[in-house]
Amino acid sequence: MSMIAQPAAESATEVVERLARAGRMAQRALACMSAPAKEAALKSAAKALRQAAPEILAGNALDVANGENNGLSGAMIDRLRLDPQRLEAMADALEQIAVLDDPVGRVIDSSVRPNGMELQRVRVPIGLIGIIYESRPNVTADAAALCVRSGNAVLLRGGSEAVHSNRAIHAALAEGLAQGGVPAEAVQLVPTQDRAAVGAMLAAAELIDMIVPRGGKSLVGRVQADARVPVLAHLDGINHTFVERTADPTMASAIALNAKMRRTGICGAMETLLIDATYPDPHGLVLPLLDAGCELRGDARARSIDTRIQPVADNDWDTEYLDAVLAVAVVDGLDAAMAHIARHGSGHTDAIVTSDQMAAERFLAEVDSAIVMHNASSQFADGGEFGLGAEIGIATGRLHARGPVALEGLTTYKWFVRGTGQVRP
Amino acid sequence: MSMIAQPAAESATEVVERLARAGRMAQRALACMSAPAKEAALKSAAKALRQAAPEILAGNALDVANGENNGLSGAMIDRLRLDPQRLEAMADALEQIAVLDDPVGRVIDSSVRPNGMELQRVRVPIGLIGIIYESRPNVTADAAALCVRSGNAVLLRGGSEAVHSNRAIHAALAEGLAQGGVPAEAVQLVPTQDRAAVGAMLAAAELIDMIVPRGGKSLVGRVQADARVPVLAHLDGINHTFVERTADPTMASAIALNAKMRRTGICGAMETLLIDATYPDPHGLVLPLLDAGCELRGDARARSIDTRIQPVADNDWDTEYLDAVLAVAVVDGLDAAMAHIARHGSGHTDAIVTSDQMAAERFLAEVDSAIVMHNASSQFADGGEFGLGAEIGIATGRLHARGPVALEGLTTYKWFVRGTGQVRP
Repeated sequence: MSMIAQPAAESATEVVERLARAGRMAQRALACMSAPAKEAALKSAAKALRQAAPEILAGNALDVANGENNGLSGAMIDRLRLDPQRLEAMADALEQIAVLDDPVGRVIDSSVRPNGMELQRVRVPIGLIGIIYESRPNVTADAAALCVRSGNAVLLRGGSEAVHSNRAIHAALAEGLAQGGVPAEAVQLVPTQDRAAVGAMLAAAELIDMIVPRGGKSLVGRVQADARVPVLAHLDGINHTFVERTADPTMASAIALNAKMRRTGICGAMETLLIDATYPDPHGLVLPLLDAGCELRGDARARSIDTRIQPVADNDWDTEYLDAVLAVAVVDGLDAAMAHIARHGSGHTDAIVTSDQMAAERFLAEVDSAIVMHNASSQFADGGEFGLGAEIGIATGRLHARGPVALEGLTTYKWFVRGTGQVRP
Repeated sequence: MSMIAQPAAESATEVVERLARAGRMAQRALACMSAPAKEAALKSAAKALRQAAPEILAGNALDVANGENNGLSGAMIDRLRLDPQRLEAMADALEQIAVLDDPVGRVIDSSVRPNGMELQRVRVPIGLIGIIYESRPNVTADAAALCVRSGNAVLLRGGSEAVHSNRAIHAALAEGLAQGGVPAEAVQLVPTQDRAAVGAMLAAAELIDMIVPRGGKSLVGRVQADARVPVLAHLDGINHTFVERTADPTMASAIALNAKMRRTGICGAMETLLIDATYPDPHGLVLPLLDAGCELRGDARARSIDTRIQPVADNDWDTEYLDAVLAVAVVDGLDAAMAHIARHGSGHTDAIVTSDQMAAERFLAEVDSAIVMHNASSQFADGGEFGLGAEIGIATGRLHARGPVALEGLTTYKWFVRGTGQVRP
């Protein structure tokens, strides 16, 4: 019997908690870095990413080969694969995030109380953000950069299918950031692929301030169901476009076609088309979609528009296809359209096409979604398109931040009170 | 055997879910009410409250008698008891809330994209708020009024010790609000005292948007531990005042005395006094506290200031006394003070007294609490004192809202996009 005690192996939970504690400590230093210092560090990270291209592409080639051996789908392999162009885009994104307006230190409002006390609400970083993501390795760089720019530490947990890519990207980032004075523990990658690490992150309410899941519905659903930590996410984008009777037919056809078919796999894609029963040109609406190869599934009235429209099943109204498939309903006016959206929508992005300003304003006011649109394609639901410079995700929850979330959503605020000896009577 | 099936009794969970669904429906109508309409309805509720004084006081007398029979503490009875003056104060508070600035519809920011799309972020109500509270019956009126003013429906769950008071107050409110056009289901009181109703509210993530617990630590702790719904609350107010070496002695003594002794039972009360080792007049700091009857518990260096200072136990640094008891530590300068606060603070309210502007700004920037103060008493940590007109609570969480929360914290926002036919390239 040996007298030397073997150290017990560290469990996935212990690893996550150790990293989270280190991340919180590092964040205190990061929170005090100036905007120019953070900018320089992120530019240095972009440079390091470019310099590490051989290592990153080699790691990625290994992941792609493993993925092919393990039978990953073509779409998954495509999301996983990096090439020099995609790597350059990743470095480029870091440089763009580096120069985004830093929300930290921004004064939200201020007042002077009758007793002379000066109050300010000032934006500060949230703290430690957990990112749980799947096959896209660019999330490693993007999410880390957004967190650092806004003064937050980040704990990254990527998918096992991208493990070699993520490790190489993280090593480059860490080196570049360290040269810019960002503590190494401000950006950490969970080293273990043990799935218990995800559970540990979701449970770490005392250590992680917010979790952002990035990936498919099963990942987001699990995170939302299990997390004790607040989650910023959307589960579904069941987005509606309502073509009201006064809609300009040319505009309505173009918007409907674009909202569905520009890219069918993004969360802002339209999933249900609602046509006003008295809209004069329904055929002009569905024809371009059918011609573009979209499968339409309609209720009885919708099917009377074109014989190629298939019957709809009840659960179609609640389905996010993310594909060239569209549910179509004919509804009796604005109120019926809004009732349909209230029942089946997911609170992501809903649009009306109309020439009636009153109808438009009622729709915008009464439809309770993160994004409501008039005469525009729902495919614009995106942080970049909204001028935020980037996005950490789109949120359909009601607290903290809603819709596309970028730097401001990664901050909170605190109250500064400056007195001259005031005591409360 | 009877052929007539008895309807199964509705469980507490079923009651909560039925009320929550009705509340959500009612909220859709409330969300569309104008600020003047909500103001008029709240003034009508104040009037109804005054008219119902006999019923409310009778209900309250019953609660107080039951409480005395059940051995409630004197402090609990005091919190529970209403008299004509307290009832008038409650009606008065409704009238004050009625005229607070309505945040709903406020434009947070707006922009025009290069393609001509107009974007706005606009404040909207959160939806359905759950309030879980204990013996103070005035919460029934206050919380309901803040929710209605900000366009939210509310589900109230008061303590069993105040059941008759709460029912009478709620009946008056509902009548007054209904006269002002607020749907009855916008303000509902959970009718059952079954404790399972609380669990059902905490679990109702699809139906209730936010829970605000109002009461003692065991209530707040249970809500925070069990809720699947986001919670706005603070568990502890372990507030520090650090008297830095350059502090004005007269100011420091006055602030320390006020921060602890003005009212010892409020969450903004100081619980730990940190004295700089080189502060010249420590005796002048502790003497007024001792004279005022405060028990001081200090570390070795603190005890050398005055023999009446008792030894401190390790857990004192983490204890919210809410009483005339104070922990005292002597620390070596600003960094040691901030390290103590980082370790033992609860992120509520922390203050520095100093004449050194640099030290003050470092403290304000680096102490990570909802409220940070320079040269002021921590007893000012209050929505009314901060000019918010009222407060639904004080939050020490990091997301959504922090510190005193009033109407703005009861809203979220949505994105309005106004186009002229834009499609995404």
